[in-house]
Amino acid sequence: MSNNLLQGKNGVIFGALDEQSIAWKVAERCNEEGSKLVLTNAPIAMRFGTINALAEKVNAPVFGADATSDEDLENLFKNATEHFGGKIDFVLHSIGMSMNVRKKKDYTDLNYDFMKTTFDISAISFHRVMQTLWKQEAMKDWGSITALSYIAAQRVFPDYSEMAESKALLESFARSFGYHFGTRNKVRVNTVSQSPTMTTAGSGVKGFDEFFNYADKVSPLGNASAEACADYCVFLFSDLSKMVTMQNLFHDGGFSNMGMNPAVLGL
Amino acid sequence: MSNNLLQGKNGVIFGALDEQSIAWKVAERCNEEGSKLVLTNAPIAMRFGTINALAEKVNAPVFGADATSDEDLENLFKNATEHFGGKIDFVLHSIGMSMNVRKKKDYTDLNYDFMKTTFDISAISFHRVMQTLWKQEAMKDWGSITALSYIAAQRVFPDYSEMAESKALLESFARSFGYHFGTRNKVRVNTVSQSPTMTTAGSGVKGFDEFFNYADKVSPLGNASAEACADYCVFLFSDLSKMVTMQNLFHDGGFSNMGMNPAVLGL
Amino acid sequence: MSNNLLQGKNGVIFGALDEQSIAWKVAERCNEEGSKLVLTNAPIAMRFGTINALAEKVNAPVFGADATSDEDLENLFKNATEHFGGKIDFVLHSIGMSMNVRKKKDYTDLNYDFMKTTFDISAISFHRVMQTLWKQEAMKDWGSITALSYIAAQRVFPDYSEMAESKALLESFARSFGYHFGTRNKVRVNTVSQSPTMTTAGSGVKGFDEFFNYADKVSPLGNASAEACADYCVFLFSDLSKMVTMQNLFHDGGFSNMGMNPAVLGL
Amino acid sequence: MSNNLLQGKNGVIFGALDEQSIAWKVAERCNEEGSKLVLTNAPIAMRFGTINALAEKVNAPVFGADATSDEDLENLFKNATEHFGGKIDFVLHSIGMSMNVRKKKDYTDLNYDFMKTTFDISAISFHRVMQTLWKQEAMKDWGSITALSYIAAQRVFPDYSEMAESKALLESFARSFGYHFGTRNKVRVNTVSQSPTMTTAGSGVKGFDEFFNYADKVSPLGNASAEACADYCVFLFSDLSKMVTMQNLFHDGGFSNMGMNPAVLGL
Repeated sequence: MSNNLLQGKNGVIFGALDEQSIAWKVAERCNEEGSKLVLTNAPIAMRFGTINALAEKVNAPVFGADATSDEDLENLFKNATEHFGGKIDFVLHSIGMSMNVRKKKDYTDLNYDFMKTTFDISAISFHRVMQTLWKQEAMKDWGSITALSYIAAQRVFPDYSEMAESKALLESFARSFGYHFGTRNKVRVNTVSQSPTMTTAGSGVKGFDEFFNYADKVSPLGNASAEACADYCVFLFSDLSKMVTMQNLFHDGGFSNMGMNPAVLGL
Repeated sequence: MSNNLLQGKNGVIFGALDEQSIAWKVAERCNEEGSKLVLTNAPIAMRFGTINALAEKVNAPVFGADATSDEDLENLFKNATEHFGGKIDFVLHSIGMSMNVRKKKDYTDLNYDFMKTTFDISAISFHRVMQTLWKQEAMKDWGSITALSYIAAQRVFPDYSEMAESKALLESFARSFGYHFGTRNKVRVNTVSQSPTMTTAGSGVKGFDEFFNYADKVSPLGNASAEACADYCVFLFSDLSKMVTMQNLFHDGGFSNMGMNPAVLGL
Repeated sequence: MSNNLLQGKNGVIFGALDEQSIAWKVAERCNEEGSKLVLTNAPIAMRFGTINALAEKVNAPVFGADATSDEDLENLFKNATEHFGGKIDFVLHSIGMSMNVRKKKDYTDLNYDFMKTTFDISAISFHRVMQTLWKQEAMKDWGSITALSYIAAQRVFPDYSEMAESKALLESFARSFGYHFGTRNKVRVNTVSQSPTMTTAGSGVKGFDEFFNYADKVSPLGNASAEACADYCVFLFSDLSKMVTMQNLFHDGGFSNMGMNPAVLGL
Repeated sequence: MSNNLLQGKNGVIFGALDEQSIAWKVAERCNEEGSKLVLTNAPIAMRFGTINALAEKVNAPVFGADATSDEDLENLFKNATEHFGGKIDFVLHSIGMSMNVRKKKDYTDLNYDFMKTTFDISAISFHRVMQTLWKQEAMKDWGSITALSYIAAQRVFPDYSEMAESKALLESFARSFGYHFGTRNKVRVNTVSQSPTMTTAGSGVKGFDEFFNYADKVSPLGNASAEACADYCVFLFSDLSKMVTMQNLFHDGGFSNMGMNPAVLGL
């Protein structure tokens, strides 16, 4: 069902790997709400995933781009504005990967080259995206930029490892760049701190199933799904959220403000 | 313009005094978005204000209720559900009044009877509203309850006086009751922490103009208007925010996350 | 063992009921560290407790005072400064009582007269104490005022009921009055957010044992004891903390920043 | 004056460049309080600064170490424990440098190689220090590790540039590693978020003087000095803070909780 919330808007969506991806659901919902879209992902993720099926569904071109490459991002946004025949209204950053988690390194035995790659892909890419948009003056005034985050940026979930630091970085970039983009262009920048979600990426984390169920039990509304997250992103891209910026917004069924849920103790 | 976001929903709006009121703008926007409405305010506020003009505009009945009276609230919600012919989907609490501010008492010379009246009207009323709704089982599952707050709940704005404590109370009630209402009915409870707003109530605070301008300068997007706040409330009442609960949501053009804006120093 | 951290200082300690009380441990530690003390509690608490044994031990007079009575507080601080032959360096507020918890009322069925009494005793008393000290100019410059709080002020622990709101109020009073006292007298005001503690008051809360054990398991260092809390208070009263003000300080073995401890899942 | 708070303890201090440095003041105060010390800094900082004068004063060896080199850190801690004839009780991390700030790059035109160097030096070094200590089992049980941070980790101060992100990273490392070190060794890890301080490093930031004066005016107690920060660190290294961990502790004269100080508006 559509409320035409994004009619006439142009959006760029990073990170739709397959139909489990939050970015995938966001693209579908944005399409329903009337926006034109450009999809992008890293070349390697495009090979492993099924982004072309999405592209067909939402009638959008796919431009491959490595989000750690300034040149790739420059080309991406040039292609996107050319495709739209105008500036960009909204951008979703949904990119994250931890080398140390993949390699099953303990948090007390991290490899620092891996860590730097993790930060480059998962967080610095967000600054790169914004800096490229800034330099190209590619964002429309009153546009909206959103990245997906996780509460490990504030509190410790040991298995999340260095991704906690990646998300702390990501949220800080949102605040800092949000000041600049807000001042010059009234563009807002926010992060959505989403419940643990059963995506291909999420479920790669050790002990994910136990943790997913724990969070679901702690949260009075249960875990928020990828579909519900897509609804939140639609709001953030729509004109309903014009004055919301530099925020980290918990979308988690109430998890973040629970101290202790008796359900966990079996009480 | 309407996106039909509240089609088929029933809402109760507290606190529309006159057309400067945020609650007034919320009622107008909810009406545009297709909801049925019931308006309510304290009898004394109804005499001083112009709520009947709003009632006519949004085609809603007005039921007077003193939000410090359990009996009044019981009658209000009985009348509302009877009027709707069904349960309530959303409620806006926009009630605040400080006796000590009115009487121009210094924060270091407060009158405690005044303070208790302030808390009763401005914060305990929110618990009363929710407790009455709870006991009457008057909220529809997946409904939404929102109260308006201010950042003085977290940080010190000396002229705001005991309203800081009122808002801290209010936000705590949202979290606590949000747990219960979420667990039983999937009903979400949130507060919106709004920019200083040029309402009849707001402008009564000492030094309000200077402060309004200061906040406007600090915020990268400027102060959020009452109209923009109404948009945020529409989102919170719509199905787009189903998994957002127990949150205090800053709607302030970025004010809350600015440490220092060079514009204030004239740099 | 003493480090003479409070040599030459005068302190007033509220709320030592019996030797389980945190205030009791604070008084003992302050005495060890060389301060002169005045003890005080509500007349009824003095009858039920054993404060006179403490008074003897720390060589301090006991002046009864109902912390909801301005007159009692005025007399208390007059007596204290007379006893000290000078102004007061530090004050501990350790007062809390919930009528609704005692009467086992559900959070969705609270009695509002009880609630107001709870707030008056547990939180407004803190403003009263500071306002009385302010008016009497009884605090020495660079003095220190501390109240004991709990993380329920930020997050939901359902069994803690309306004490969550009391603590939210208390912490807000600390910030607000801290601004005024800091500006005029360089006096600092803080709250310590302490682990659940096995006191006579604490263990009255429903399900306290299960919760105590849960918090102990979540916290990497385990729950902080009353003795450790007394050490923290000594620091806050000493010259080592002169520039710390308007803060809520977690003293909890790390509980507050844990998202999920695998120990809880038995992982 | 000494309170013998660190009698019998062994500490390693990073980052004393010259006598303006906070680390310098910390070393002096730790020495007064009875601890044995090892000093360390990057070879290049040792050449530009005057650490040897400090070493003489506090009777401590200086072991040069590049905090971005695992090998250097391994040697440092081996030398330190050998010098002490035992394990380490406390560590101060006071290291920060921004390449992009030095090169006067705008936040919207950052060089990413510079940024990565900044993070490596200013934040990842903290993880490296802890990981090296962890692997060598060099920390005594109930030891204490502290790093110096700044409120730009939470809020935007535009001139602070990418150091905001560095501090967000640093504080996240403190939480994450604090969980592990607490669980295995009862070692606590915290960050102190200090007022802007007139150090050689601090004053290199653009517009520092104006900002320093602004913060001083906003803070009810004024800016906290390096000496006062040293007192806070002494507390954190002493047995008075045994149960405080994974916290970011504001040491700032109240700045962090001020929303608006009328003094800034000239009211």
